[in-house]
Amino acid sequence: MEKAEKHELEEGQIFTPRFNEDGLIPCITQSARTGDVLMMAYMNEQSLKKTIETGEAHYWSRSRKELWHKGATSGNTQKIVQILTDCDQDCIVIKVEMPKGPKDQEISCHTGRPSCFYREVNASTLKFI
Amino acid sequence: MEKAEKHELEEGQIFTPRFNEDGLIPCITQSARTGDVLMMAYMNEQSLKKTIETGEAHYWSRSRKELWHKGATSGNTQKIVQILTDCDQDCIVIKVEMPKGPKDQEISCHTGRPSCFYREVNASTLKFI
Repeated sequence: MEKAEKHELEEGQIFTPRFNEDGLIPCITQSARTGDVLMMAYMNEQSLKKTIETGEAHYWSRSRKELWHKGATSGNTQKIVQILTDCDQDCIVIKVEMPKGPKDQEISCHTGRPSCFYREVNASTLKFI
Repeated sequence: MEKAEKHELEEGQIFTPRFNEDGLIPCITQSARTGDVLMMAYMNEQSLKKTIETGEAHYWSRSRKELWHKGATSGNTQKIVQILTDCDQDCIVIKVEMPKGPKDQEISCHTGRPSCFYREVNASTLKFI
């Protein structure tokens, strides 16, 4: 990458998301309420556009190979509060609000937990948190 | 993936990180102090082991194709407070503490900013935050 191009990418005000060779960009989803990281998934150009247009998180399901409107069936949609991108524009953070379920929690993980990150790594074992 | 294998992956207590076809796993780095997402980078098996063994974040530099001990030259090392993994064990969150620089801030981004996520996406433009 040339120096001018790198400078524009890092310090510019034009959004030029850099999708990887599969046309995807990783998206980190954070609770706007608690700051917890809820999940990490991928967006393609279509899902990123849909997310911006509709104000609700859309991802690209790599397993199903289709546009994935999070919560379309479960009701656990993610309302966009803020979208951030990083220095080299190859990653996205979205801060979201979700409907509160039982125990006043936002349920983001398909296992029924608020966050997908419910286990702590202790060397070779995992501890549920 | 078979049902028993999926159950073990999601509900088990054995850490079996799923590296992608390039041998990498995405790592989300969060400030233990503020909860801000500081950066996203990749780890291979070697860097993940080093991170666990040393208690300091090690990544895999995809551009330089080498082990990357974050802060080894700048001094902005990342001390591991907690490592989490997600339901399907193909992503890592690390919560870190960093030395405080000017303005009492942790400097994680190579641009000299605390976080790599210093711009907000507003449709096609970016706003510095």
